[in-house]
Amino acid sequence: MNNFIGRRQTRTRIKEALAAEGARDRITVRGWARTVRRGKEVAFIALNDGSCFASLQVVLSPELEHYEAAVRCGTGACLEVEGALVASPAAGQRWEVHARQVRLLGSSDADYPLQKKRHSFDFLRSIAHLRPRANAFGAVFRVRSALSFAIHNFFRERGFLYVHTPIITANDCEGAGEMFRVTTLDASAPPHSEGNIDWSQDFFGDRTGLTVSGQLQGELFASAFSDVYTFGPTFRAENSNTSRHAAEFWMIEPEMAFADLAEDCALAEDFLRYLVTFALQECGEDLVFFNERIEKGLLDKLEALAAAEFQTMSYSEAVQRLEKAGRSFEFPVAWGADLQSEHERYLTEEVVGGPLFVTDYPTDIKAFYMRQNDDGKTVAAMDLLVPRVGEIIGGSQREERLDVLQGKMTACGIDPQHLWWYLDSRRWGSCPHAGFGLGFERLLMYVTGMENIRDVIPFPRTPGNARF
Amino acid sequence: MNNFIGRRQTRTRIKEALAAEGARDRITVRGWARTVRRGKEVAFIALNDGSCFASLQVVLSPELEHYEAAVRCGTGACLEVEGALVASPAAGQRWEVHARQVRLLGSSDADYPLQKKRHSFDFLRSIAHLRPRANAFGAVFRVRSALSFAIHNFFRERGFLYVHTPIITANDCEGAGEMFRVTTLDASAPPHSEGNIDWSQDFFGDRTGLTVSGQLQGELFASAFSDVYTFGPTFRAENSNTSRHAAEFWMIEPEMAFADLAEDCALAEDFLRYLVTFALQECGEDLVFFNERIEKGLLDKLEALAAAEFQTMSYSEAVQRLEKAGRSFEFPVAWGADLQSEHERYLTEEVVGGPLFVTDYPTDIKAFYMRQNDDGKTVAAMDLLVPRVGEIIGGSQREERLDVLQGKMTACGIDPQHLWWYLDSRRWGSCPHAGFGLGFERLLMYVTGMENIRDVIPFPRTPGNARF
Repeated sequence: MNNFIGRRQTRTRIKEALAAEGARDRITVRGWARTVRRGKEVAFIALNDGSCFASLQVVLSPELEHYEAAVRCGTGACLEVEGALVASPAAGQRWEVHARQVRLLGSSDADYPLQKKRHSFDFLRSIAHLRPRANAFGAVFRVRSALSFAIHNFFRERGFLYVHTPIITANDCEGAGEMFRVTTLDASAPPHSEGNIDWSQDFFGDRTGLTVSGQLQGELFASAFSDVYTFGPTFRAENSNTSRHAAEFWMIEPEMAFADLAEDCALAEDFLRYLVTFALQECGEDLVFFNERIEKGLLDKLEALAAAEFQTMSYSEAVQRLEKAGRSFEFPVAWGADLQSEHERYLTEEVVGGPLFVTDYPTDIKAFYMRQNDDGKTVAAMDLLVPRVGEIIGGSQREERLDVLQGKMTACGIDPQHLWWYLDSRRWGSCPHAGFGLGFERLLMYVTGMENIRDVIPFPRTPGNARF
Repeated sequence: MNNFIGRRQTRTRIKEALAAEGARDRITVRGWARTVRRGKEVAFIALNDGSCFASLQVVLSPELEHYEAAVRCGTGACLEVEGALVASPAAGQRWEVHARQVRLLGSSDADYPLQKKRHSFDFLRSIAHLRPRANAFGAVFRVRSALSFAIHNFFRERGFLYVHTPIITANDCEGAGEMFRVTTLDASAPPHSEGNIDWSQDFFGDRTGLTVSGQLQGELFASAFSDVYTFGPTFRAENSNTSRHAAEFWMIEPEMAFADLAEDCALAEDFLRYLVTFALQECGEDLVFFNERIEKGLLDKLEALAAAEFQTMSYSEAVQRLEKAGRSFEFPVAWGADLQSEHERYLTEEVVGGPLFVTDYPTDIKAFYMRQNDDGKTVAAMDLLVPRVGEIIGGSQREERLDVLQGKMTACGIDPQHLWWYLDSRRWGSCPHAGFGLGFERLLMYVTGMENIRDVIPFPRTPGNARF
């Protein structure tokens, strides 16, 4: 067995080194050189291993063996440094390492694309395989990882079961958007039957695509485990090249048996507050960077949200408020039309000045599975709006009455037979239930201040781009 | 806003009711009737809400309002019960509820497919939308949820970053198996260019498929964050209808910078031990069921694994042991051939009698990215074998030397240009690194004793089946 390294136990993560209680005579760190600079008497290497935002300053004296090779290693080189951890005289860092031994693990030539200078996010997207080594993306992906954990922790603490709903689906009526097709048929010569492509000969014996939501299957699981959630990838084959849309993204969808819309809102409020508080507590160093360099006022915004009282307003009242706003919107306001981003932001930013649930939308602009209210014209739906973003969460109480649900499907042009299994959950042991969806990337954009969804996904998939 | 339920705060989960410290005068539970039986003087409903394996016995006296309706609600009906939690005279349960009020939330007719009797797993697969309400599947999916959390917890405690690697990929050379195609082209009339399908007109401007592994992208992230892991869905378009293969499954793939094969094995050992110990501690009631009804001796097996010393043996030694085994295998044993399941089981069950890492396999039978050993004929790969299953984890140290990696790709018929971004990670700041993959469903089969992969996935996708 190869033993090239074989001394992992001795490695100290830079995060731990920087948080040391006291000086240490002997420490070994490994990481990548963010900068290398030669001073008058000694040289300095800023070493980063991704465990935290900050780099560790390594001080190299010319007496060091291989000194010249070390200071010529180049930005981006991978190094192992053994030395003493001592108090640093430099501002902004408590500790530095005085190297006794430096080993070059992987060199980096001058053509390394991530030289120390400001790069546009656009350029960095073109080197998405290297951008995790840039400050902003190190911070983004640490926050992404921390919040992923927070999501699981939130639901586990509350007794929710995590369910992996399927990615490949034969349902083309989930209703949330255009679908990608998944196939193994020979594209040049697909089998035909009566003039049409014979999907029964495809891998799954049916025409299949990538899921746009795990909700319907989540509802089935809620009918057995009471409280469940999904957290997985979802897909939209929409040809929209905006900063807020990606073809592949991750979504969180809780579903609660025995819950009505008020309880759905209560869960969404607890959830969002928990996630933002978690980020403030666990990702402080990264958020300080975002606050300084990406969105001024970010920390204030997040702290305000964590402390805010969430308001509730019906759609009908929201429309009245918008009609009385005394300003001209780009899109007209009228009962029955969906709220646009400008309307949502006006409501959350100017009318209530904080997070706002808008509830009970017109039946005609919402999905077939939402519960019909007694007024006959609205459904028990909710959108959570937050300042600077607009909608961040959307949910509803689900229609649990078999006959009403069948009627709504038919009205929407969905053949109830296609979703026989979904209807079965209303046939035997149906129960009132509710849930919502949160797009994980939208949350990350809110928490980090990053303005393009491509910059909060490790390797974004958008029209014309599935690189890396 | 609809307030049909609106009293969630008063609901007690059955798991909590059954774990109560003392009697309670007033308790509200909600769930599904597993059985309804009329005794001589009172009736009994076993109520289950999925929060735990056990059901709560509800005792109904004929004086109860709506008594007749309640006892006729039918297996599978959804009920709300308000009453007193009192000590139960019945064996095997500490508490029962004496109902004061019963409310039928959702009835269930006699055609409910999940009547109280033994059903074959085969039949239950045909009603995968209802089987979570059956004992075995309730237990399976609670274990699945618990172990998902354990995975995240294990890596978080060790400072690993969680990365979401892409599902849709334009790489057709990941080397782990056949891929599904993802497309939005019109299947009946795809665009052509020079006689071939013009994939540049497809959604992503390229021919794309579903990922078979997140490893290559995981390696890129390890080159920035040192220690990372993926946990997400992966796909194989293989037409194999076995009990161990599914077209869609979840995989965990950690990747560590600065690690060699020995450290990779050490992580795999810690990980598997942690997961099994977690299941024993957190899923005791469900595992007792599996031990009694699914795999006799399961608990002993798991406890043995948690306490076992993991052995290591090179592939070359393993072949020698097999050659000297003095028994005839179905598949011949010879240096250079891959080990078959019968060989793996002989090694782990009979040669060492416990978990075994087999390391340093012949170069020719392993993937291009595995690190070439100095002997020129083996690579720094490992498979972890466990009794009753054979291989459960496969990993390797990765080839970090640019020239060696390029040579291996060419030898495997992979155009290095197609993976230019992967090679870049060896060009600038390359480092020794290692990782492994664990198929989540294979772990679940091991921990639960379930013998068919279709029975540990909520909605399995296999050739000819993408239902639900």
